[in-house]
Amino acid sequence: MSNKVPSADNQQGRLDEKLTPDYLVGLVDGEGYFSVSVFIDHSKNYLSRRVKMVFGIDLNITDGKILYDIRDWFGCGDVRLKIDKRERFSHQLQYQISDRKLLKKVIIPFFKKHPLKLTKRKITFNKFVEMLELIENKVHLSEKGFVRVRNLAQQLHDKSPQRLHAEPHQKVVGDDIVHAV
Amino acid sequence: MSNKVPSADNQQGRLDEKLTPDYLVGLVDGEGYFSVSVFIDHSKNYLSRRVKMVFGIDLNITDGKILYDIRDWFGCGDVRLKIDKRERFSHQLQYQISDRKLLKKVIIPFFKKHPLKLTKRKITFNKFVEMLELIENKVHLSEKGFVRVRNLAQQLHDKSPQRLHAEPHQKVVGDDIVHAV
Repeated sequence: MSNKVPSADNQQGRLDEKLTPDYLVGLVDGEGYFSVSVFIDHSKNYLSRRVKMVFGIDLNITDGKILYDIRDWFGCGDVRLKIDKRERFSHQLQYQISDRKLLKKVIIPFFKKHPLKLTKRKITFNKFVEMLELIENKVHLSEKGFVRVRNLAQQLHDKSPQRLHAEPHQKVVGDDIVHAV
Repeated sequence: MSNKVPSADNQQGRLDEKLTPDYLVGLVDGEGYFSVSVFIDHSKNYLSRRVKMVFGIDLNITDGKILYDIRDWFGCGDVRLKIDKRERFSHQLQYQISDRKLLKKVIIPFFKKHPLKLTKRKITFNKFVEMLELIENKVHLSEKGFVRVRNLAQQLHDKSPQRLHAEPHQKVVGDDIVHAV
């Protein structure tokens, strides 16, 4: 990944003909997610409290081309194939950003400037921003702080199965895993 | 329902502060559907070949407020509650337009002017437009025409279960039912 961090303010100048901020907000209101995984990693010789934060959009592979445009629009993130082995289910393309520096410099300013409109998405986004702040301040590294972050992630968690987003690439060793969508 | 049919061209003048065409396109790319039900109604004393065409958006009840704004934006359609009795599933609000006159005068011109971007949605929309034309010309009333329309509806049908949209309010007597999303 390049060390150059694009800024949200730069995006307006490189407006893709096909994409507009309003379109992106509408699509993310429908198909986007802000996901937080909180877990203890016992795989090393010492206990490691870990938090993974992800902004992403998953689309059916037929529709996925637009994710490359979105990646180019934001100037960061990765598009990868997500294989679904279930019969009658399509493979998906998945656009994700999990680099916290990029989340802070690009994604959060974008959605602050162009707010999400659906109530649950707005609430999730605001909590995601709050959690990123805590993580940046390394609050989760203490036992007490870790519990606080885990509780926040639990609040973020939408219990409706339709909305449940599983982290397919998550390697987790430990018991405390919370996904928020 | 009022006899006054709003036109898509009128919408621009009454732009809701919160809604823009691009936002709507993004949301519909994610959460909207164009659904066609083809069936034979045996409930009357004579055989009746019926087609129901629906444009709609379903959202979790928490997010559903925006559907009233969308109804006001288009100047037509209905918002209704869709109860989900399954545990851990939320009720939904459902915005739908099934009046073919309104689909032709409002919805289709809107999405012709502001095209959907996702490949499958675009294909579905184009087939929906083609089918509306056939239905308007009463092609489905003959046996041969009905089979043609039913086949088109089948082509429209997305077999991916994630995308499968059931018509909750459909009263059907007969065997030939095709839903397209």
